[in-house]
Amino acid sequence: MKKTENGANDAIEKTAKLLAGAKKVYLATNGSHGHPNLRAISPAKAEGARTVWFAVHADSNKISELVNDNHAVIYFDAPRMGGEFRLWGFVEILDDMESRKKIWGKDYEEFFPDGGIESPSLRVLRFDAVNGTYMNKNMETFPFEF
Amino acid sequence: MKKTENGANDAIEKTAKLLAGAKKVYLATNGSHGHPNLRAISPAKAEGARTVWFAVHADSNKISELVNDNHAVIYFDAPRMGGEFRLWGFVEILDDMESRKKIWGKDYEEFFPDGGIESPSLRVLRFDAVNGTYMNKNMETFPFEF
Repeated sequence: MKKTENGANDAIEKTAKLLAGAKKVYLATNGSHGHPNLRAISPAKAEGARTVWFAVHADSNKISELVNDNHAVIYFDAPRMGGEFRLWGFVEILDDMESRKKIWGKDYEEFFPDGGIESPSLRVLRFDAVNGTYMNKNMETFPFEF
Repeated sequence: MKKTENGANDAIEKTAKLLAGAKKVYLATNGSHGHPNLRAISPAKAEGARTVWFAVHADSNKISELVNDNHAVIYFDAPRMGGEFRLWGFVEILDDMESRKKIWGKDYEEFFPDGGIESPSLRVLRFDAVNGTYMNKNMETFPFEF
């Protein structure tokens, strides 16, 4: 972890705390025809502020876009909690059982009725942040890098 | 307005209704280093589902990104209202008084203390959608074009 400026480690901690409490975040990708794309998505698991895991359907537009270009950004704003963050990074699309076990929760059964954790429709996204920013309720922005 | 399939006009109407009630939407742009970027933003005004206006600060990252590349997407999800939409389009950055008057509301005074509607910091974004999708609560997706 590289400390980019005073407060960067603090910003990472605050981002990790917001992320841990986030039921949904916004994931943007580079979409088709030169346009970005984005969607709300529930994190399956987060490791600090750096790595975020998602369970997705193989036929979703996320997958087709990320196969072409794995640049992504995760955004979360929580006015009531007094902060927001962005994490810029890259996404790996995984299909192995170890990754599936890592993200699996029993509430996923209904989304993957064709086999549950062994569903051929299930893909695991592993997002690794390269850098990010945390913004506090006074709209002060704190950048950080990993 | 080109009708792309049965239900497209209905999808546009439903999108317009969601947009009219949206206090904030998510605006994604093509950011730096090949990564998309996004933020929550309050629409200043919407005209149907096709044109959306925003008041922004001249020194925001939105402006610097849109100067380089004016592709954008607007996303809004309203689980309680039972729908979500995406609008893909292009953004024009405006500075003239007619545009300023179009978007100005008295609650903007506090954000532009250096002159209010005449503030040199104020820029007006006009987003014009080219196409979009509406998704209902059953996760059925209806694409449309303008």
